[in-house]
This record gives sequence, structure tokens and C-alpha cells, in this order.
Amino acid sequence: MDKGRILLSVTGFHPQRWHELLSAERDVVTEPAGKDDPSITYAVVWKHKPNLLAGLPNLRAIFSIGAGVDHIFNDPGLPNVPIVKVVADNLTQYMTEYVVWRVLDHHRQGMLYRHQQQKKTWHEPQQRPANDISVGIMGLGTLGRAAASVLLSLGFRVNGWSRSVRPMEGVTTYAGDNGLIPFLNATDILVVLLPLTPTTQGIVNYGLLKELRRRNGLGGAVLINAGRGRLQKDADILRALDDGTLKEASLDVFEVEPLPKTSPLWSHPKVYVTPHAAATSDPNHLVPTMLAQMAAVERGEALQNTVDRAAGY
Amino acid sequence: MDKGRILLSVTGFHPQRWHELLSAERDVVTEPAGKDDPSITYAVVWKHKPNLLAGLPNLRAIFSIGAGVDHIFNDPGLPNVPIVKVVADNLTQYMTEYVVWRVLDHHRQGMLYRHQQQKKTWHEPQQRPANDISVGIMGLGTLGRAAASVLLSLGFRVNGWSRSVRPMEGVTTYAGDNGLIPFLNATDILVVLLPLTPTTQGIVNYGLLKELRRRNGLGGAVLINAGRGRLQKDADILRALDDGTLKEASLDVFEVEPLPKTSPLWSHPKVYVTPHAAATSDPNHLVPTMLAQMAAVERGEALQNTVDRAAGY
Repeated sequence: MDKGRILLSVTGFHPQRWHELLSAERDVVTEPAGKDDPSITYAVVWKHKPNLLAGLPNLRAIFSIGAGVDHIFNDPGLPNVPIVKVVADNLTQYMTEYVVWRVLDHHRQGMLYRHQQQKKTWHEPQQRPANDISVGIMGLGTLGRAAASVLLSLGFRVNGWSRSVRPMEGVTTYAGDNGLIPFLNATDILVVLLPLTPTTQGIVNYGLLKELRRRNGLGGAVLINAGRGRLQKDADILRALDDGTLKEASLDVFEVEPLPKTSPLWSHPKVYVTPHAAATSDPNHLVPTMLAQMAAVERGEALQNTVDRAAGY
Repeated sequence: MDKGRILLSVTGFHPQRWHELLSAERDVVTEPAGKDDPSITYAVVWKHKPNLLAGLPNLRAIFSIGAGVDHIFNDPGLPNVPIVKVVADNLTQYMTEYVVWRVLDHHRQGMLYRHQQQKKTWHEPQQRPANDISVGIMGLGTLGRAAASVLLSLGFRVNGWSRSVRPMEGVTTYAGDNGLIPFLNATDILVVLLPLTPTTQGIVNYGLLKELRRRNGLGGAVLINAGRGRLQKDADILRALDDGTLKEASLDVFEVEPLPKTSPLWSHPKVYVTPHAAATSDPNHLVPTMLAQMAAVERGEALQNTVDRAAGY
């Protein structure tokens, strides 16, 4: 059998490098020749146009370009073929860097020092040791576990929460609806790495933030969201910052992206904004894995890292 | 034999908590009863007054309150008794946090993101993976090795330089005068954790910074000094920042401390200033160790972690 064509369908950015690298081994098109184009066997997508894939008779798999696959499930005409998640050491490393960076910046009072520097103030504030601080990670998949491991090596206490029980050495784990409040009550710095599904949408709301531990001398809890913007309610985060429920927040994702210029989050003194840049999907690392998976399918092997459609991730 | 008295001699800050904790087990005075006060058997000091210890006939050991002992060698009348260094897990952990925090902030372009946030700019810059960046640590003692270990777990390449050869798994080590230039030539982010001695004073000068690796796309090397201020030449760092030799710097220490309000380092856009706060000496952790050492000496045991006077640390 001839190698099938790849349909590369991306909105929101220009996937030039992806096109170059995929083209080195296979034919790549950015539009099907028609609704029922028989030449297309794989789709590589990021927020593809709805119903684009519905009629392709020979489509064997859909590959997501980014971490998270919620953008694929937004298609009402999604065909019933396997969906392959991004799993790359590279992506995991970037996310670990981001999480550890932001945890340390809040823990070591980076915002206070920047403020003091502007005023030329030489003052050493009280500093707690890491083993007095509990970082709680929502989502204990590949990304959450990798970040937990480095945080443990820095001496932090680490809690983890996931839908179903996922034990990890050195981490106090909680699971399901019953575990959520106890998890939050024991957490000083909350790191959100959940997938976006119908059950997690809007989960980071005022009621949840109110359950975080607030201890004397720490001045409120800290929120770090590096998952998906629609996990959170931007307005609830602002309310929690303004009434002292939250001390500070680092947000890489937002309900609407790019974050509108009118959002008060941009200029809030307690918020650190990054532009959905925590973990970049690097085509140099991901394309070889995708091409290898396509070749494996054609040798009759099973696809790896496919999405559980019932769970939505 | 009666328990001897402790002389607690500190300048630059008020050692109230040290006094409380030491007093719980022994008599503590802040001045000797005379030049030859026979009741004093231990001195616990930070920048003590010169010649204060010279005539004490029963002094058995001097304990340093902070990491580094250069403040003790500044005393021209220093008696020839053992000097004990601070070695506390706590201090090492704080320093590791600081080093990893500052390395990640430079690596992940924290200064750029803060600038973008002020302008409400949503833009994802190019980001290199950690395994493309070499962090070079000058000083491979307890502090340097602990920081290296966490940096390795984040995926960074790590180089180390020390006076004599100190191998460490996963770290490319260099030693002595002959190793310095090759070490610098292979380093993108320089972390200075050296002790201050006559041979290291002023070592972080323009000539040294000029030898750091400067690669396309990284925009100059990065300097992080968490050692001692007099290791560096403040003016040389400013010159290197302004001519592009250095991209950015994080400085916890300075030639003169507190950093004078007139220093251009305070308001330099490429400098992150902290007030000698990288690793706090926490009396709650350190005093029990000191008291245990005093008791051990009185049982006839040898002192641990004493200073090599020839090396000066």
C-alpha cells in the first residue's frame, strides 16, 4: 500500500515547521481534495475546523499537536478513529521547568523583591523553608508526576489530586470528589495541570479557592494554572486575589486567549502572566514520534498514547 | 568541669533569637568581663570586633553564624583555635532553592515576560530546552553539589569548577587555574558559590565574564552570584551588561552591603537584586548543632566541619 497523505489542519498559528518536517517523509495537504478525499489517512491537528474530518473514508488516526485534546472534542462531527496524544519528554521537561519556576518564585517572594528593588529597599523578609510548604498538584498524569518529583527534591511537601487514585512515593494523594476538599485544605500552593473535560470545566472557581489553606505569616494561598484556561473562572480569581483568599497567582492560561487587553489580570500587581507558553510543542521533537507511529500502524502495530474517549483525555 | 560560657559577638544585626536559644543551655555574654576573661570557652560570631578574642585563655573554638568564614579572618588578632563552619541541611536547601529559582527565571525569560505583561503583549518567544543550556557552578562544596543535583534533574547540563578536582556524577568538572578558561568557555549561565579568600577576591571581573560562552539566539551569558560580594567587581558587571557580554544578572551579594542607593545596579533593567537573602542562617536549626558540638568537645570528641586555615575556608 502507498503511504497515505497527512492532512495538517491548524488554526491560531502558522504551522510552517510542522509542514516542513512532516513533508520530509509523506505527502502533506492542508485541505482535503473534497469532503470524501480517499487519499488522507492521518490528520495532524490543532483546533481544526469543525466537520472537516467527518467524511474522510480512509482516516486511520488523529494526532494532536499540543498537550491536551479538548480542542479536538470541540468538533461535533468528529469521526470515530483513534486520537493520539502528544507524549514527549521535551514537553514534560518544559512543563516541569515552568511549574518549579513559578512555585519557587512565589515561595521565595519574587514579587516582593521586585517591588523592593524598584524602591531600592534592602530588607530581608521572613522566609519559610520548603519543608514547611505544601504544594498541591491537581492532575497526576505524566506532567504532574514529573513536576512533583523535582519539587520533592527541593524539599517541598507535595499533595496530589486526581480523578481516580494514583499513588506516588513521597506524595500525599487524594482522589475523586470526596478527596477534593481535604486536598485543598492541606495545600498552600495549588498547581493546576488537569485536562479540560466537561467535568473539569470551571473547576477553579471561588468556592474551590476558598478551601485552600491560609496560614498565619504566609498571607494567603497561591494559584498556578498551567493546564487549560477554561478550567478557571478569571473573575473568581480576581475576587479571591482582592479579598485576600489568594496571595498571588501565576497564570499561563485564560478563559479567552490571547488574554484581551481589557482584562484586569494584565495589570494586577499580584498576577504573573505568561502567554500560554509553559510547555511548547516543539515540532523538532514531536514530528519524528508522529511519523514513527504512522509507520508502526502500517506495519500492523497498535497505536500508543491514544485518548480514552469516555474520560475525554 | 563546669560548662564554659559562650561569648556571642555579632555586628550588623541583632542576634536576639541566637541569644535566647544558646542561653537555654549555657551562660551567654555579649562582652568578655575583661581582655583575659577565663570563663569564656566558646565564641559564636558574625563580624565580631577585631582583637576581641585574642587574650581569652580558655577559648576552645569559634563558631561562625553564617555560611562563609571570611568575616572571621578579617580579625588581625584571631587566636589559633579551631573555627567551625555552619553546615546545616536547612542552609543548603535555601541556597539550592535560590540557585534553581534564579537559573529558571533567566532560562525561562522571566524578565522578558514581566516586560511583556506591563505592555499587555501576548507573545511566545523562542524557548530553548534545558538540555541545550550549560549551567556552570564555581565552587563544588556542599552548596554547589546540592544545587547541581537539582539542576541535573531539570535536564540542564552542569559544569563545575573548583580549586582542586572534585568529581561529581553527571557534572563536567574543571579544576584550578588551568581549568578556569575551558570551564567558562563551556558555560551559558554562571553560578558563583565560591568562598571569599585572598585568591578569590575580585575573581568575577570583566576578564572572567568575557570568557563565558555567548551563543546565537541566547543574547549573552548570565551571571548569578550567591557567594560573597567581594568576589565580584560591581563596575565590571555593569560594563559587561551594557556591552552585551552579559545578558542578565541575579545578584544576592555586592561589594558594599547594604547596596548603596546610588548604585546603578538597583535600577538596571537586566539586574535582579536580592538583599543577601539567598540562604538565611536560621538559629532554630543551627543552635542545636552548635550546642551538640560543644558538648561533644567536652566529652573529648573531635570538632566537625572545622576550617582549613591554609585554604581560608
